[in-house]
Amino acid sequence: MREEAHLRPRPANFVPLTPLDFLDHAVKTAPGDEAVIWRGRSWTWAEFHAVVLRFVAALRARGIGKGDVVSVMCVNRPEMLAAHYAVPALGAVLNCVNTRIEVSDVSFILRHSDSRLMLADPSATRIARAAAEEAGVPFEPFADDGASGDGLALLSTDAPPPFELTAEITDEWQPIALNYTSGTTGEPKGVVLHHRGAWLNAIGNVTALKFDRSTRYLWTLPMFHCNGWCHTFAITAAGGTHVCLEKVEPGAVFSAIEAHGVTHLACAPVVLYMLINSSAKQTRNASRRLTVATGGAAPTASLIEEMDALGFDFIHLYGLTECFGPTSIRELTGAERDLGVAERARLLARQGVRHMTANRIRVLGEDGEDVPFDGRTIGEVALCGNTLLSGYHRDAVETEKAFSGGVFRTGDLAVRHDDGHIEIRDRAKDVIITGGENVSSLEIEGVLSRHPGVAIAAVVARRDEKWGEIPMAFIETRTGAPLDTKALEAFCRDHLAGFKIPRAWSFGELPKTATGKIQKFVLRERATQEKVGSDI
Amino acid sequence: MREEAHLRPRPANFVPLTPLDFLDHAVKTAPGDEAVIWRGRSWTWAEFHAVVLRFVAALRARGIGKGDVVSVMCVNRPEMLAAHYAVPALGAVLNCVNTRIEVSDVSFILRHSDSRLMLADPSATRIARAAAEEAGVPFEPFADDGASGDGLALLSTDAPPPFELTAEITDEWQPIALNYTSGTTGEPKGVVLHHRGAWLNAIGNVTALKFDRSTRYLWTLPMFHCNGWCHTFAITAAGGTHVCLEKVEPGAVFSAIEAHGVTHLACAPVVLYMLINSSAKQTRNASRRLTVATGGAAPTASLIEEMDALGFDFIHLYGLTECFGPTSIRELTGAERDLGVAERARLLARQGVRHMTANRIRVLGEDGEDVPFDGRTIGEVALCGNTLLSGYHRDAVETEKAFSGGVFRTGDLAVRHDDGHIEIRDRAKDVIITGGENVSSLEIEGVLSRHPGVAIAAVVARRDEKWGEIPMAFIETRTGAPLDTKALEAFCRDHLAGFKIPRAWSFGELPKTATGKIQKFVLRERATQEKVGSDI
Repeated sequence: MREEAHLRPRPANFVPLTPLDFLDHAVKTAPGDEAVIWRGRSWTWAEFHAVVLRFVAALRARGIGKGDVVSVMCVNRPEMLAAHYAVPALGAVLNCVNTRIEVSDVSFILRHSDSRLMLADPSATRIARAAAEEAGVPFEPFADDGASGDGLALLSTDAPPPFELTAEITDEWQPIALNYTSGTTGEPKGVVLHHRGAWLNAIGNVTALKFDRSTRYLWTLPMFHCNGWCHTFAITAAGGTHVCLEKVEPGAVFSAIEAHGVTHLACAPVVLYMLINSSAKQTRNASRRLTVATGGAAPTASLIEEMDALGFDFIHLYGLTECFGPTSIRELTGAERDLGVAERARLLARQGVRHMTANRIRVLGEDGEDVPFDGRTIGEVALCGNTLLSGYHRDAVETEKAFSGGVFRTGDLAVRHDDGHIEIRDRAKDVIITGGENVSSLEIEGVLSRHPGVAIAAVVARRDEKWGEIPMAFIETRTGAPLDTKALEAFCRDHLAGFKIPRAWSFGELPKTATGKIQKFVLRERATQEKVGSDI
Repeated sequence: MREEAHLRPRPANFVPLTPLDFLDHAVKTAPGDEAVIWRGRSWTWAEFHAVVLRFVAALRARGIGKGDVVSVMCVNRPEMLAAHYAVPALGAVLNCVNTRIEVSDVSFILRHSDSRLMLADPSATRIARAAAEEAGVPFEPFADDGASGDGLALLSTDAPPPFELTAEITDEWQPIALNYTSGTTGEPKGVVLHHRGAWLNAIGNVTALKFDRSTRYLWTLPMFHCNGWCHTFAITAAGGTHVCLEKVEPGAVFSAIEAHGVTHLACAPVVLYMLINSSAKQTRNASRRLTVATGGAAPTASLIEEMDALGFDFIHLYGLTECFGPTSIRELTGAERDLGVAERARLLARQGVRHMTANRIRVLGEDGEDVPFDGRTIGEVALCGNTLLSGYHRDAVETEKAFSGGVFRTGDLAVRHDDGHIEIRDRAKDVIITGGENVSSLEIEGVLSRHPGVAIAAVVARRDEKWGEIPMAFIETRTGAPLDTKALEAFCRDHLAGFKIPRAWSFGELPKTATGKIQKFVLRERATQEKVGSDI
């Protein structure tokens, strides 16, 4: 076939991919189904659609239009979900701001993003207002109960504005969100995400987690964190129900699970530790199993075992803000579910294989070639596909660096097993080089987490005159009290080569990001500053 | 945000959407899972991937490259499925040819498409070879058992060629398939489909029919028919199993269902009539329910009832070759499944609401505006979205006509119910205008199909001096013997306005296309030519 002019794309057969279409699909195919649940109230898709329309009208009245950045600092409430549709519908860019960061960090984001409007839920008003004032950005809070009183009342039952939701999307590459990285490295960057990738990653989540109309998804993951891994869009795509949870507190989680027949939730392992250590778990009906997608750190054997007893099945996901959330997945196949817990933990510790819509995951050695599938050779995880950021806002240098070599370099180090599954060994910057040997801090952490007295362990490099660097372990114990370091060293010796055993120890609560990730850059600072007792 | 040059799409973050990626996903994530079953043999994804590689090598050796049309005339065998990956992998265009059409029709297609190569399975060799000779196109058959002997032996267990499948797709708008319409209107047109739409419609099928890794899909629908509604791609996307069936014969269907634990099948109602009228149905274990997606005609109440007793749940799909297969869907919700069979039939007769990946379905009146949602006003179904053809090959006039008004005009007439669901009333050209009144042939057929003696009914217009046109009914009876027309008229009078009652009758087997659609253009010719007995 040669090219034929009349076979060109036209508006009738080429429509930009955008997650806004998921809302159109839900409201056209299941208008009466339950869309959102919050504080005992619920909205059907038709009603939630009206909330979005009302939000669009409010934004338009405030002069928001194509390309404008709208910042929202909000816990998991219906307004936050609605913002994911209302802001992009105007061709504007959604900038979700972590509700747990400080005024100076927020105002940095407002200025760097050139934000046009700051919205916040009542619980975040103090910081949001102060930051908006500092940055000179108009500020408005949402109404306390969402429906009436002071502030933007979007959840009222007034009739929706008399217009259709016609998304002003002319190009699927248009930015949909601007997300500032949560800063495990200390330097937030503005990740620009596009409509095409958001649509695709949401669909990848639907197929990977088997979301459908019967799905009832509990929002334990903050929506402000990478747009809730695009589940803000995926649950809508599937026509499932968003169960909003404002505060991740074990009693509230367990009670929502039973009250709303929750089928899925997603969170970092740190949240799951909270659940298994709470007496509220007794209310859980373990016979109705549900799926928990976890990421950020691998679930340990003891966590898997305890969650299993509570009726939770694990799926391990790996991803970054830069790739719209999940980009790889490790789940247990039918046969693997019958394996012993140690073996299940070993498999679920892997980050697995490509997500449906993530095209290619590679592990590249220093020579730029794929490492062998030997489970030993470490390389950098590199991605190539449709669910990757456009680039970093106002940072051409970092963007070109990230895309150098024609792939996106994650900075994560991994091995590749013989079945092609990847397993992260470390962040590139978290590797410890001691006596010329590369040591994976994750490997040491994995061993420490199997010790019965350890709740969470983090290992970082500490400068050392003799060895260059040595591994230093920071440990949160089960009881809160320090452990015997000699016994810990003996425990490590059974599982690790001598040069990998931590040579410095510290006990206490670990610094975490708002999403539960350990802030290793804080620990690295502490490692250089603190005088620690049990240095050997 | 203003435009920033470094935020442009790059090869690392913008990859053309193509269904070839589904095969990559399957072989990377589940290489050992069962991919294809045929004649008691089976292939894992790794093995099927090797078949595709061998096919690519064979095509390359025969000089096939980008833009070349490759014609394949083949029943549902693994080679036919493999052609859906091997041909597009070279950037070539797959032209599937109906195995049940005549030499002159096939050679017309070969010449019109400028085909470079004709492949056929042994059962189609006689016609394929003759047509290829007539059109001057090189011809090769597949080996009889697929693996050895004369012809192209792709299914052998030799090692795969030593290269990776790297698809030569640089643009998702590239043509992937050229499908000639089956000709209910008598004039085949070459429908050009693109990679983007095939990827998207396959994903729409996955979500609509809930395909996943446990899906075992029985190929009762011919793969040559609109690429098997894109299930050729969708089952692979889900990582399910393709169960190939060469000949749709009730014994073989029922035995495959039980032997392979089939979960889904798709076909026209005419195939289902074959099933319920066969004694082979006794082997069906009705306690394990499966899903049958049907289209082309609405399932009747009696069909639903009989299939229900055999353990089949219905999903009614509507679509055209021009929209990659399904574009709308009507399934029963949980509550609707408990309704009486007449009510279920009434709901399932509707074509429903938009498929996930079909963006917009409209019903347009003569003024070009959407008809009211009143279940009465008839308009033309118009589509706008990503799962529509590029256009008709070598036919700019028909292409522009089809896209006139900025939408794709289907030629199908429908009403819109108050819930937004569409219900097809007729093909535009099948409407009967009698005494100035528009009569839907589908409405009359619906009534006739409820008569216990009627197996299939088709109604067309017959020229009439007095009325302009009158409805004439062609009926295939359950027993094969003609029915009493006076009694049929009385039956119609209970359900239809007087002017809608057929005024001419004919009994006997109805002419059908290879895919089971009634060929109304043949009946229209007969209506003008035949001297029929019971004309009133």
